Amino acid sequence: MLSPGLLKDLRAVVGPENLLADPAGLLCYAYDSTPTTSLPDAVVLPGNAQAVAAVMRLAGEAGVPVVPRGAGTNLSGGSVPLQGGLVVCSTRFNRIREISAENLTAVVEPGVVTANLQAAVEKLGLFYPPDPSSLSVSTIGGNVAESAGGPRGFKYGTTKDYALGLEVVLAGGAVVRTGGRTVKNVSGYDLTHLFVGSEGTLGVITEAVLRLIPLPEKKQTLLAAFTQLDRAAEAVSAIVAARIIPATLEIMDKVTIERIEEFRPSGLPLDADAILLIEVDGSEAEVDHQAARLEQILKAGGVERLRVARDRAESDELWAARRTAYAAIAHTRPTAITEDATVPRDKIPALVRRLQELAAKYDVEMAIVGHAGDGNLHPVVMTDQRDPQEMDRAVKFFAEVFQVTLELGGTLTGEHGIGLLKAPYLEWQFGREGVEVMRSIKAALDPKGLLNPGKVFQRPVARPV
Amino acid sequence: MLSPGLLKDLRAVVGPENLLADPAGLLCYAYDSTPTTSLPDAVVLPGNAQAVAAVMRLAGEAGVPVVPRGAGTNLSGGSVPLQGGLVVCSTRFNRIREISAENLTAVVEPGVVTANLQAAVEKLGLFYPPDPSSLSVSTIGGNVAESAGGPRGFKYGTTKDYALGLEVVLAGGAVVRTGGRTVKNVSGYDLTHLFVGSEGTLGVITEAVLRLIPLPEKKQTLLAAFTQLDRAAEAVSAIVAARIIPATLEIMDKVTIERIEEFRPSGLPLDADAILLIEVDGSEAEVDHQAARLEQILKAGGVERLRVARDRAESDELWAARRTAYAAIAHTRPTAITEDATVPRDKIPALVRRLQELAAKYDVEMAIVGHAGDGNLHPVVMTDQRDPQEMDRAVKFFAEVFQVTLELGGTLTGEHGIGLLKAPYLEWQFGREGVEVMRSIKAALDPKGLLNPGKVFQRPVARPV
Repeated sequence: MLSPGLLKDLRAVVGPENLLADPAGLLCYAYDSTPTTSLPDAVVLPGNAQAVAAVMRLAGEAGVPVVPRGAGTNLSGGSVPLQGGLVVCSTRFNRIREISAENLTAVVEPGVVTANLQAAVEKLGLFYPPDPSSLSVSTIGGNVAESAGGPRGFKYGTTKDYALGLEVVLAGGAVVRTGGRTVKNVSGYDLTHLFVGSEGTLGVITEAVLRLIPLPEKKQTLLAAFTQLDRAAEAVSAIVAARIIPATLEIMDKVTIERIEEFRPSGLPLDADAILLIEVDGSEAEVDHQAARLEQILKAGGVERLRVARDRAESDELWAARRTAYAAIAHTRPTAITEDATVPRDKIPALVRRLQELAAKYDVEMAIVGHAGDGNLHPVVMTDQRDPQEMDRAVKFFAEVFQVTLELGGTLTGEHGIGLLKAPYLEWQFGREGVEVMRSIKAALDPKGLLNPGKVFQRPVARPV
Repeated sequence: MLSPGLLKDLRAVVGPENLLADPAGLLCYAYDSTPTTSLPDAVVLPGNAQAVAAVMRLAGEAGVPVVPRGAGTNLSGGSVPLQGGLVVCSTRFNRIREISAENLTAVVEPGVVTANLQAAVEKLGLFYPPDPSSLSVSTIGGNVAESAGGPRGFKYGTTKDYALGLEVVLAGGAVVRTGGRTVKNVSGYDLTHLFVGSEGTLGVITEAVLRLIPLPEKKQTLLAAFTQLDRAAEAVSAIVAARIIPATLEIMDKVTIERIEEFRPSGLPLDADAILLIEVDGSEAEVDHQAARLEQILKAGGVERLRVARDRAESDELWAARRTAYAAIAHTRPTAITEDATVPRDKIPALVRRLQELAAKYDVEMAIVGHAGDGNLHPVVMTDQRDPQEMDRAVKFFAEVFQVTLELGGTLTGEHGIGLLKAPYLEWQFGREGVEVMRSIKAALDPKGLLNPGKVFQRPVARPV
């Protein structure tokens, strides 16, 4: 509960219409895309950095937790106000301030929707590659806070590869700038990359300077259907080993294909055990060359059927199907939990095999979809959180997935973040001393522990030996 | 002075042959590529992470400063043992542990010479792009600590874009791992990028996992000679605006051309006022397409003469000339100081003009060489540190260069680091509160302030208003 005095002060800062404290309003900010929900005590929607700074000063003085939030699409519990407090939501703070075709940069406020930025720069022949599946609603501020990835990560990297500079409001209200407008910049510590992916635990992002690149002349989408999931996974390794770097190299298993076709019929091959959805881009000559090489490799790898999108419309249709995968899978059961296991690229066939074994071992219903070229798979478990036994099996399944991922030389999370769900496992990856370094940085920047408490750091669970 | 007991303990850790404490030995580790020198009290050359950890424990207990060092080629004073203490040099710790063509990664010890790694991966059809001019002697550990750049930064980015994971020994001797072997990785805070470019002030790097990319099929080098420096700078902006991204886009002014031709005749055009040295790379088709577009743009931009390297030998010769630029300029006067002014790409013409005005204003002898495509210029001042008046003018010149660079929206340093030389100016860029964030991280990781003291952080000088 926030004091009436604090609520009054907050209203004065953001305007009464931009503070929510009624039950219906609070409920709208209690969730993200994970099963956990938790009500905030109030929600503010500031429209500029000065307002964010004033809010942070007030929250700091009152000792109230602050949870920064964009569109709430994240998949790790990152924007759930676990300990209540104040949600600081960026959706009103959403102007594109500048797009410079000369410097190849954009300067945006945190609430800009990813797809809107992409459309704006593409009009100028420029390209902002990061493409989380939620891009039609997700915000750049949220993308930066989570270092959002997406299919194009394979060739183009993720949000962290495009963030050149930030304006951040710290706990207590100080406003700092990190990085700048230049691609080369080694002035002082790289605070930009410390804040990128820090999941709202170190500060509230109020501006981002983003790197742009020239828009590729041409794209070409290929759909490769396999009768065995293993073969699809091995084809991915063969493509990487042949030094071909498509823009995207996505894998979907049979369950995913079926769910998508039920949810939003898109012409995916229902008789396939797995498909690879591949996009090559570049100059006209480059695209033709790569597509031809891919065809050779896929045929040598035992592809059952290869479909080349005839035009942009067909290609867009296939990508819309891919982006709908999580929703299509999630709506079939009361609870869906997606993981973000990421291994060295050559370990993808091994990871696929292990995931299937573990799903059978724990008797969980699983779909596999993911960015195979990056070694990044999203096993989605369809379950029901109201059934304690089923949930218990899911939790055990995921714990063993984490273990297997780390054994294969991978990471707990490639693009979704640690958040709430994976915080107890962080020490498995970095050890006590590694996590201690992170905690010491958190303590240095947020000594009262008010920023997004309960995220990233939690009491560790014992790692099986 | 180190105590005899500490020296004995250090000898026991690294072996007596790997500890230097004699005057001649110490002198060899007192310098880098800046004018400042300062003797260490001892030098150790450990061969593995355990030895580094033991050295760090001993130094921590004794309260002795530790200065990590690779080949000592850096241009910011980063590896000068300003307060004496112990130099921890990585040159013996220099194996390439693994190159994975399947995962597109290399795992190396810190003392691996940059050029050796590049040669090793190129044999496998892979590419490690970062190319500081010192690459034939510089070490990967030093490159990581300084986030070294180079000409290829324009298309390929710098060391920070290739560091996926590190093993680091902290002050006190704890060994931690950051990042990992996957390109996508958002597990916990991005400590990898915190250590990259931290200039030895946060830890000693003992292993780096580096991202590799496929080696481009073909390269083509072009040399464009201009009768006016301004025109060359404007051609750079025109190339960027046309969405052409060559691998490199280097500028050299008349003074640089003359010095190189005196030092190492390379066939550069002595009648030109400036040259652009451009390399395009990619597939055969891509390279031909880009080279043809460049020729159009350069001709429209008033190029005086355009030379296309006939073969790899001619191209290598031109690049060897470019890499020799600093040495060629430096040897003409007793003291050479190079700066690292970096501005948004479209501000290159303005920066060139301002540098020329300032050199005239302060009566300093200056050459300009740099990575124009990145907005990154290196004005080199040829001076004599034994002449206080001349040095005073140089210091004032550089202070105003910093001021101008920041006014143009740039950064104090694009690729050389803050080190010793630019530490008093850091607040000009980030303000008191921005620097305070960096200091708080330093204090969290190195509470006794023993790691490379005097670097990055110093008492600020007042910024002119």
